[in-house]
Amino acid sequence: MTDGQSFDGTKILITGGVGFIGSNLARRLVSLGARVTLVDSLVPEYGGNLFNLAGFENRVRVNISDVRDRYSLNYLVQGQDYLFNLAGQTSHMDSMHDPFTDLEINSRAQLAILEACRHANPGIRVVFASTRQIYGRPRYLPVDEKHLLRPVDVNGINKMAGEGYHILYYDAYGIRATVLRLTNTYGPRMRVKDARQTFLGIWIRLVIEDQPFEVWGGEQLRDFTYVDDAVEALLLAATRPEAIGRIYNLGGERVISLRELAALLVKTNGAGEFLIRSFPEERKKIDIGDFYSDYRLIRQELGWEPKVPLNQGLSLTLDFYRRYLPSYL
Amino acid sequence: MTDGQSFDGTKILITGGVGFIGSNLARRLVSLGARVTLVDSLVPEYGGNLFNLAGFENRVRVNISDVRDRYSLNYLVQGQDYLFNLAGQTSHMDSMHDPFTDLEINSRAQLAILEACRHANPGIRVVFASTRQIYGRPRYLPVDEKHLLRPVDVNGINKMAGEGYHILYYDAYGIRATVLRLTNTYGPRMRVKDARQTFLGIWIRLVIEDQPFEVWGGEQLRDFTYVDDAVEALLLAATRPEAIGRIYNLGGERVISLRELAALLVKTNGAGEFLIRSFPEERKKIDIGDFYSDYRLIRQELGWEPKVPLNQGLSLTLDFYRRYLPSYL
Repeated sequence: MTDGQSFDGTKILITGGVGFIGSNLARRLVSLGARVTLVDSLVPEYGGNLFNLAGFENRVRVNISDVRDRYSLNYLVQGQDYLFNLAGQTSHMDSMHDPFTDLEINSRAQLAILEACRHANPGIRVVFASTRQIYGRPRYLPVDEKHLLRPVDVNGINKMAGEGYHILYYDAYGIRATVLRLTNTYGPRMRVKDARQTFLGIWIRLVIEDQPFEVWGGEQLRDFTYVDDAVEALLLAATRPEAIGRIYNLGGERVISLRELAALLVKTNGAGEFLIRSFPEERKKIDIGDFYSDYRLIRQELGWEPKVPLNQGLSLTLDFYRRYLPSYL
Repeated sequence: MTDGQSFDGTKILITGGVGFIGSNLARRLVSLGARVTLVDSLVPEYGGNLFNLAGFENRVRVNISDVRDRYSLNYLVQGQDYLFNLAGQTSHMDSMHDPFTDLEINSRAQLAILEACRHANPGIRVVFASTRQIYGRPRYLPVDEKHLLRPVDVNGINKMAGEGYHILYYDAYGIRATVLRLTNTYGPRMRVKDARQTFLGIWIRLVIEDQPFEVWGGEQLRDFTYVDDAVEALLLAATRPEAIGRIYNLGGERVISLRELAALLVKTNGAGEFLIRSFPEERKKIDIGDFYSDYRLIRQELGWEPKVPLNQGLSLTLDFYRRYLPSYL
C-alpha cells in the first residue's frame, strides 16, 4: 500500500487527466491531499469526459490543452512535483489509418514534454503509462519485460519511442522517470460508448442496454487490471526510489479467455447475451493471439500486485454504468 | 556472393545516395547494370558529397531533396524495384541538442516513405540501414539481435522507431522490407572532415595531414565493417527471399580496442601519432563501453560475412584519402 503521506500538499500534473485512468488517479490523489492539475485535450474520439470529474470538479484544476501544444505543456510542468504522463492516442486502427497523428501524440509530444521538464523542472518525478501493445505477438507466455518488442501497429511503435524517451531522459539527464506497461485496464470511467479504448467498454454498454455483444474469436487469453490496482501501481512507481529508470509490466489476477470473460460478464450482470464471431479481416492482421503478462518484477521490487478479483471488478464496473451510462454515450 | 544478374535493368532508389555508403552501393549497382536514382539533401553537416560520384556522374540520376520532403519521395518511389533507405541523421550529439530534427528525419520521414510505398508502389523491395546504436550499453557480448534495445541517445530511439515502421509495414501490409543493423562502417567516401559520422574519419584525416589525433578512452572494444562488405550485405538483403521481414546485425572480422586500432592505423600509414585522452563529460553520458556484434544470424541465413581484414581496409581507405583528401574538407 502506498504511504498516503507522500502526496500530501504536493503539486501534481496529470496528462490525459480527464480520461479513464487519469480521473481515477486524480480522485485518489486529491483524497491524499495533493494539489492536482489535469491536462486534457477532450478530443471527442479519445477518453476525456468531464463527467469523470463529477462531484469533485472544484477540487482539481482542469486545463484544456493538447499534449501536442508545446507552449501549454512548457508552462504547465513548471513547479510540479510529479507528472503522471497518461495522455495518448490509444486506438490501434486509428494509428494505421492516420499514422502521423499517432506519431505526433505518442512520440513527438512525449519528447517535447521531457524537453520541457529538462529545461524548466529537472527535479520533477515522472511516471509514463506505456502499454503491453509494444510487445506485439508473444514469443512466450507470460510476457516479461525482457521480451522482444515487435509492435503490430503504428501505435505500438510510437508508444515504444515514447517510453524510450522517458528512460533516456533519466539515463542522460537524470529526469527521474518510471515506465509502466499497462495491460487491459478496466473499471468505472472507462470509455464505453464504443470499442475505441477497449472492447470491454462496448461489451459493458451493450450488456447494460440489454443488447447482445460480439466476441471476436473467443479463445484468446488475456489478463485485466482493475483501475484501482493500476492507480496503486502509478502511486508506487512515483514514490519508490527503486522505481527510478525502471520499466515494469502490470498484469491481472487471473488469465481468462475472451469467451469465458464474456460468460463471466453476463453472469455478473445477471442477464445478457453474446455472439462469437470470426475476426474481421482488417483486425486479423494486427491480432496478437494469446497475451498475458508476467508482473513478477514490480511485485518483487515495489510489492505491487493486482488485488481486485475480476468478478468483483466487473461487478463494480457494472454498478457504475448502471447508474451513469447516459453520461458516457 | 550476390548474383549480379539480379540487378541488371532494375530500377533502384537510394536515399542518402550521395553519402558514404549510398555512393559506394550506387557504384556497385551501376556496375551490375541497374538504373539508379540517388536522393540526397546535401545538408552540409551530413554525409552527402558530390565528389563521391566523381567519374560516374553520368551513370546515375541525382535528385536533390530531403527525405522530410514528402511530395518528392511520394513521386520518387514510384516505379522503383528496390529502395535502399540509407538517409539518416547520424550524429548522436546533434540528436541530443536538437531532438526534433532527429525525430523528423529518422522517424517521421521513414514513416512517410513507407506510406508512399504502400500507396504508390506496394511491390517495392526495401532495405533499411539501421544501427547497432539502438542496443545501447551491451548487457552481454557479442550482442545479437535478441538483445534488449535501450538506446543512450535520441538518435537511437528514433532509429529504433524507423526500423520498427519497416518491419511493421511488412507484417501489416506486405511491403517486403529488411533491416540491417550496421556497426562501425568505414572506407573510401566516408566523412573525414570531422567526427560527425565516425571518429575514424577524423583520425584518418589527421594521420594523413601528419597531425596527432585523439583517442578518447582507448580500452573500449569495437568491430568495424569495411564498406564493400556492407554493400554486399545490402545487396544480399535486397535479393534473398529469406531476408524479407528480418532484422540482421552486421559485424566486423575482428574485435579491437580503440588504442590498438589507433596503433594499427599509424602502422598501416607508416607514420603518425595519437594521444590518449579521457572522455569529455558530455560524451561520457552516452558512451556505451565495449561493443561488438554477433552476426551469426545473417551468416547462417544469407551467407554474409565480413571479408576485408581491418588492416587491408585501413590501407585501402588511406590510399583513397591520400589522393582525394582535399575533396573531403
